[in-house]
This record gives sequence, C-alpha cells and structure tokens, in this order.
Amino acid sequence: MTTEISDITSEQIAAGQRAHELDREHVFHSWQAQGPFNPMTILKTEGSYVWDGEGNKLIDLSSQLVNTNVGHQHPKVVAAIIEQAGKIATIAPQHVNDARSEAARLIASHTPGDLDKIFFTNGGADANEHAIRMARVHTGKHKVLSAYRSYHGGTHLAVNVTGDPRRVASDNASDGVVHFFPAYPYRSYFNSTTEAEETQRALKHLEDTIILEGASNIAALVLESIPGSAGIYVPPAGYMEGVRELTRKYGIVFIADEVMAGFGRSGEWFAVNHWNVVPDLMTFAKGVNSGYVPLGGVAISPQIFETFRERVYPGGLTYSGHPLACAAAVATIEAMEEEDLVANAKRLGDEIIGPRLAQFKADHPSVGDVRGTGVFWAIELVTNRETREPLAAYGGSSPEMNQVIAAARAAGLLPFANFNRLHVVPALNIPDDVLIEALDKLEQALVVADGFVK
Amino acid sequence: MTTEISDITSEQIAAGQRAHELDREHVFHSWQAQGPFNPMTILKTEGSYVWDGEGNKLIDLSSQLVNTNVGHQHPKVVAAIIEQAGKIATIAPQHVNDARSEAARLIASHTPGDLDKIFFTNGGADANEHAIRMARVHTGKHKVLSAYRSYHGGTHLAVNVTGDPRRVASDNASDGVVHFFPAYPYRSYFNSTTEAEETQRALKHLEDTIILEGASNIAALVLESIPGSAGIYVPPAGYMEGVRELTRKYGIVFIADEVMAGFGRSGEWFAVNHWNVVPDLMTFAKGVNSGYVPLGGVAISPQIFETFRERVYPGGLTYSGHPLACAAAVATIEAMEEEDLVANAKRLGDEIIGPRLAQFKADHPSVGDVRGTGVFWAIELVTNRETREPLAAYGGSSPEMNQVIAAARAAGLLPFANFNRLHVVPALNIPDDVLIEALDKLEQALVVADGFVK
Repeated sequence: MTTEISDITSEQIAAGQRAHELDREHVFHSWQAQGPFNPMTILKTEGSYVWDGEGNKLIDLSSQLVNTNVGHQHPKVVAAIIEQAGKIATIAPQHVNDARSEAARLIASHTPGDLDKIFFTNGGADANEHAIRMARVHTGKHKVLSAYRSYHGGTHLAVNVTGDPRRVASDNASDGVVHFFPAYPYRSYFNSTTEAEETQRALKHLEDTIILEGASNIAALVLESIPGSAGIYVPPAGYMEGVRELTRKYGIVFIADEVMAGFGRSGEWFAVNHWNVVPDLMTFAKGVNSGYVPLGGVAISPQIFETFRERVYPGGLTYSGHPLACAAAVATIEAMEEEDLVANAKRLGDEIIGPRLAQFKADHPSVGDVRGTGVFWAIELVTNRETREPLAAYGGSSPEMNQVIAAARAAGLLPFANFNRLHVVPALNIPDDVLIEALDKLEQALVVADGFVK
Repeated sequence: MTTEISDITSEQIAAGQRAHELDREHVFHSWQAQGPFNPMTILKTEGSYVWDGEGNKLIDLSSQLVNTNVGHQHPKVVAAIIEQAGKIATIAPQHVNDARSEAARLIASHTPGDLDKIFFTNGGADANEHAIRMARVHTGKHKVLSAYRSYHGGTHLAVNVTGDPRRVASDNASDGVVHFFPAYPYRSYFNSTTEAEETQRALKHLEDTIILEGASNIAALVLESIPGSAGIYVPPAGYMEGVRELTRKYGIVFIADEVMAGFGRSGEWFAVNHWNVVPDLMTFAKGVNSGYVPLGGVAISPQIFETFRERVYPGGLTYSGHPLACAAAVATIEAMEEEDLVANAKRLGDEIIGPRLAQFKADHPSVGDVRGTGVFWAIELVTNRETREPLAAYGGSSPEMNQVIAAARAAGLLPFANFNRLHVVPALNIPDDVLIEALDKLEQALVVADGFVK
C-alpha cells in the first residue's frame, strides 16, 4: 500500500496553509472554544494513512471519529459515489430510489433478528432522536432511560439523552430523560470486585431505577451496545441479556445505539450479536458507509413498524435515504462482505491488538486497564495503578495527557484520545504490518505516560 | 435541453419495479402511514425534468423538497462531487479541509451584513437546533419564540419550534417554545383588511407576546424569512424590519431560518435582503448545494461568535463540514454566480410566474390568492372566494385537492402541494419555455379545481 502513495508537493502544502487561514477566518468548529483552537490540516488520505499540513504521513488510529471503517478512499466506495453522482445525486424521500432500496435491503440482511425496516437519517444524533420518537408514540409513554457517560449525539434531545459532560450545557430535565449508572468493571459504580458482581449489581441498579421512576411512564431505554467515547467498556457477561430481559419485563422499548460499535467495528456486524440480543430499535451511522457521505438510520422491529402501518409517523427529513449516501452504504457493505472485513476486525483484535495491549499493561505502569474487541479498544492511563488515579480527570484534559498525545503524534500517529484514555480504533482493513507499526509507535507515547506515574 | 435526454429503457423500468418492491419491503418513509403509502418511483433526473417509474417525463415544479435550486444533475456540481470523492471523501470536523474552508468563505461572501462565521450541520433541522443552542448560551436565557404554521425541522427541538401540525405529536411545552401568530395578509389572524394594517397589528401582537412572556427569559426568536411549506406568504412591508427592531429592543437573538428561502430562491441571495434586515444568526440548508449532498449550517454574527471565542461551544457532529457536501456547496455557489441564477430567479418571478399567476387569479374562480417572489410562489385554492373556504382544510387533504394534484400529474408535472395550496417552486435555472409549458400544464389542474367552486 505504501508504494502507491505519492509525496506531498509544496503546492499542496501552500494550499493547505491557505485552507488553514480561511478555516480560522470562517469555520466555526464543533465542541471547541473557537479562539485558541488550532486545527490540524489534512492534505491527503489513503487507506490507513493521512498526511498533515506539513506533509507528514501519519497512521490513522482514530478512523477520524471512529467512522472510516473501510479506511480512507476505499476504491469501491469512491467509485460508487462517483457513479451515483453521475446518475441521480439526490431525490426527495417520498420517491422510490434504487440506491435507497438496495441499501435498506442490504442493511436489513445484516441486522439482528427481525429488524428489517429501515428509516434513514443524516447521522447518529437524528437516528437516536427518531428512535425515541418512535418509542414514545409506540408506547404512549414519555420518559427515556439512558446511561451516565454515554454519548448519543449533539442535537437537543440526543444530547440530553447523552450522559457525558457534553450534555450539561443543554440539560433540560423536562425532556424526561433519566440517567442510570452503567456497568463499568474497571471503575465500578457499585463497589463490585468481579465482573459477575458488576453484572448482577448493575442490573439490580437498573431495575431499581425502573421501579422507582415508574415503568408505567418509561417509553425507552437507550444504550450503546459497547459504550464508545465513554471508554469502550465491553459489557460484562450477562449484562446485555439482563437489560433485554428487564426492558421486556417492564414493557420498555430497548434502543441499542450502534452508531459507533456497529458495522463490524466490534468484530461482529453489530455489537449486540456478541450476546445474541435483539433490541426493538437499533440506531446506526458512521460505519454504515464509513462516513463518506452523511448517513444514519434506525432499524425497526415488526412490532413497532405495526404502530405506523396505518398511523402517520410524525417525523421526517429532506435528506432521508439520500441516494448518494445510500450508494456509498451499498458499496461499503458489499466491500465488507467481499473482503470479509468483519472477520478481519475480529482477527486483528484477537491476534494483534488484544495481545499487544495486554503486553502494554504488563510492561507499562501507566497503563491501568486495557479492554476491547475487534478494532475497538481503549487504554486507560493512570498515575497510580492502586488508586487508579486517571492521567486526566473525567471530563477534562491535563498537561500530562497532552504530552502523551503529542508523543503519539510525534511518533507518526493520528491518535484518538479522550480524557485519560487512548483508543485503538483503526480501520477494519488496516494491514497487519501497519497496525503493528502503529502499536510500536503508540508504545512510545506510553513511555512518556510512564514518566508521570507516582 | 430536451434534445439531450435519452429515453427510458424497459430494463430501467424493470429495475424501477424491483426498487419499488424493495422499498415497500424495507424502507420506512418520512411523515407517512407506512401501509397505504405508495411512493412514486423516479428513474432518472436531469435539469428540470424527472422520469417516473413508467418512464413518463415530468417537469419538476417541486425542486423535490424545494432544494434542487440549480436543477437536477447540474454538470458543474456533479463534477465537483466526483472530483472531491476521488480526493478526500470525508474527514473529521476537527481537521482543516480545503473544501470546507472554501465553502465557508463563499457562503460568508454572500450572507447579509457581518454574518461571516459558518457552523456546518447535516441539514436544516440541526442547523436550527444549534442556532437555538448558541442563542441560549449567548443570552443565558431559555425561551424561544416562533410562529404558528412555521416549519423548522424534524428533530425534537426543531419540531417543537415548528408551528405546523407536524409538531403536535411531539409537543413538549417544557422545551420553552412559545408560538405567536404570523403576518399572513390573506388569512389575517388580526382581522386586518390591508397589508399595512397586518404589519402594524402583527408587530403589536408580537410585542404583546414578548411582554407577557417576559423578555428577561426569551433567548431567541426563530422565523422563516418567507414561510415556506406554510404558504409562501411574503411578509408585508415593514414586518421584517419591525421584527428586527423588536428583537433588538428586547435583547432577543433573531434567528432567520433561510433553509428554504435562501440561496437565491426568493430572487435575492437571502430573503432577508428584500428588507435589508441582518439577523443575529441565519440558518441554511437545501439550496446551499441543491441538496446533492446533505448539508446545512448556521451563519453567525461577530457578537455571538465572541461568546464562543474562549468558551467551548457545547455542540457538534461527526459530519460537520463534510468535504463532499462542502465541495458541492462551492460548485453550486460558483454556478449560481457564473450563471447569474439569483437574477434569473428574480426575472422568472417578475416576468413569467408573477404575471401568469395573476392571470390565473383573474381567470379561475378556484384561485383565492397568489403570492411569491423569484421562483417561490403559492396558489391558494378555495371553493369560494368570498368566504375563502380552502379546497382542503388546514393540516389535511381532501378528495377534491387530490383530484387537482392528479390532474397536474396527468398533465406532465411533478407538482408541490400542501393542504389547499399548489406551490410553484421550480429550479432557478428552469428554461423559460419549460416554465411556460409547466404553467400551461398547471392551468389544466386549475380547471379541475374550478369544478369544485360553490
């Protein structure tokens, strides 16, 4: 792959500098204080590589925002976008379009159980918003349960359902969202000392919450199958099955948020497959077409579909089932099938990332915990393994963590970092040697982190 | 243009039938009861034409959902998508990308006044959601004023801000949205008999609402510069200036929703330009890139930008400033400049649509009112001009109205209809002869409507 890559010219670098100036003049960025923000320029992308504004070639361990599951500029997906653009770039959602039909069929062929109707949105946030609306209309109830620390999107209701600090500025208690504590063995909210205990106590806590909030007014429970930005803490054995059982017992619609975990990232088509759990609604985005064109959606069970057979679904959007986005989804899913990328993600996790991260934990005192599955892993950095004191506080950064991130960059990586964590979230098709090289580089950053251990 | 168009083959028709079957099997549609819905298949699009599932060639008077402002498959925009797809299809929002920088610069070069920072979203709904969040953080206040009958998007907060019947199923009074009555001369909510009286009374009503709700807790007023789906009632002289004055007087952030009216549709780059009004925030989508790739955004005043210079903006999204969407925006805006499409839209309105619709009103007793500007016009159908009894009730349809729509379709049009209205909303570059032919065809539907006049 590296042999195909051309160098960056001085013209490209100059154009990048101009783009950077214009960006600072006119672009308002997500989740930033606009003044001090100094964004990194990306001049080129290919496979698992990106080139920064100085022409440095970096290995992309971030998959951007954990979305470029088939890597950058996958030729089949690019070709599909080009073909569709020349055919029908756009059409309104009330018309039939072949790319949309085929995308829905292909997605439904991979979704768990009987989730075979697809409502398309523009991304994960509106997918979650619409799933909640479907649940509310279906049940006639209002409240929504979701986990602390979770991330479900940036629009008003989605950010209220979110349990991480990004929601606080937009909190609106009257939206009917109630947060419960997630199963998170490494930093148990239940004083558990084993995974089995964590499962049992976290489920009891969830049932207590349902009982005390009153099941009679709870429409939905929204849960990331594997929490993503929050730290990729794979639910302990029995937890997801327990959540499914409780939601069934209390008549609550179970919405599995697979926006980040879905489409192969966890080493299964969808993370819920790890536990053979079938939710009532499942939301997706990102990996569905690797983010090459904005797309998200909701996979819908027959029971909930039935509610909207004769009754109008009170929601929609201009770009629902956008042909260009759907054509990219078709090509992405076909590429994943043809190249067996889900099995490859599992193999990379089982054979390369998992063992290497275990070795990191053995060798580096700054590594408090490693966990994950497929190409979806987290490393928790701590200053003290006994107290598990994080290298940056929850919800914030620290000079120490910034040095670790800078070391990863200097070593030639585009890392994904959040609070005290480094995530290892490459493309599902990252070549083995590139992945191994990336983990070597990442280890250089861990050496820096070790320097902060007390 | 018609000479370039090839015929539809029987293979294409068969493929369309297969797409229709798959659609009914797997696609969940916006704003529909899923069971009885029988969507129309579109096999091909070009310029101002679409071909339905039987191969019939129709003139697109809808611009889909009033978004394909440069028509279908504009070669320059298609070429830009193809070029960008081959270069960098996607990149995370925290990085600098040249297509995004250039789109922001170009948009800012056309926005009114000093609105020169651009936050990109996926569409109009999240643009309005984020604009409201900016206003709430900027002011520290919570309530939002918006007009009855308006449409501001399908996500939770956007649909609550919406004033049309689509919001009712999702109503949540605690979101802090208060609806006021719009200026709508033909069906005045203020018993006005002249436009001047409507302006004066509607502004007094708005000020009364502000005073009684308490300006001390009103963050924002959201208003479509020209209400779109609600009926394209161009605000009477003085109204928009009055709204700007009142919002300034009471310290309320004025958010102009230009999602449908913007990017040339009204015969100006933005509809607020008709009155030289500069809002504090302006939202856009649709016409920014003709919807060829999902894109929306918020143009931000320096005062509001200042709030987020050192303070984190608490919002964002994975596809903010998506390169493919931004490249399409750059090409669309450049095409609009090169082909002088805004002036053309004004000319089409002044010289062809306006005079012809006035003639319709003179000739057809079913035509209660005609109004609009540029390529943004509405015809209100009534059964009685004295009582102004609509041909379909507000919020619904009627067998009579359905016959009118069917007649327009049978005549060879893809019309845009809502309640008792037909909208004339073609592309800004529809050829004069095609537009004249379309209006001839539309008149055949008016003859059907005349049959229902009592």
